[in-house]
Amino acid sequence: MHVIENETLPDATLPGIDHKTLAGAAQGLAHLSVWRQAIAPGGATPPHRHDCEEVVVVEAGRGRLVGGGTTRTFGPDTTLVIPPNVDHQIVNIGDESLRMTAVFAMTPVAVFLTDGQPLPLPWAS
Amino acid sequence: MHVIENETLPDATLPGIDHKTLAGAAQGLAHLSVWRQAIAPGGATPPHRHDCEEVVVVEAGRGRLVGGGTTRTFGPDTTLVIPPNVDHQIVNIGDESLRMTAVFAMTPVAVFLTDGQPLPLPWAS
Repeated sequence: MHVIENETLPDATLPGIDHKTLAGAAQGLAHLSVWRQAIAPGGATPPHRHDCEEVVVVEAGRGRLVGGGTTRTFGPDTTLVIPPNVDHQIVNIGDESLRMTAVFAMTPVAVFLTDGQPLPLPWAS
Repeated sequence: MHVIENETLPDATLPGIDHKTLAGAAQGLAHLSVWRQAIAPGGATPPHRHDCEEVVVVEAGRGRLVGGGTTRTFGPDTTLVIPPNVDHQIVNIGDESLRMTAVFAMTPVAVFLTDGQPLPLPWAS
């Protein structure tokens, strides 16, 4: 078992996204990754997909989830369920940081752009 | 894809524990469950185990994680990583609610007491 003070974990960034991997392969997991992310106002994830299930718990901010042929807006205290291999994008549409915890049913997490190219991540996933 | 306002999800309880399942089999997932729980001051989970990996993100409060031959205390903004089939117990040792998001690499989640008996849950897991 591991007890990890989150502030001791490394921070990483993509443009407009602050990231911290809370748990994953580095902690001995084989089937789970847990990420904490904050998307800045005006920021967004790139459109992308994973070949595993993803659940995002939104703690603060307002966003738009685009994918699977739909566009849905959401506020804080919302849960997003994203099936495997569905291209999706999360956009901050508010004026505060969009804070989220994202959970994946694999580790490390592979991320693919919509053209199928892998997106190299600047963090252990 | 699902966008779920958490306040619309049903609440459930065990003694000293407020529970809400944020996502799981009911949302079409096959490999992930996400729970939100609050353990009241003086409260604790029963000692128990799962046959899947678990990650707990602690948002507020102070607790003790007992299991795997160790006892560790933790505060807010902490991540607990619990391997499969390790008996464990989370105890609120503070004077405020211990608020956590727990993630499991299976759905529904099976819970076993330390004698191996299944613990029936009063919520969809």
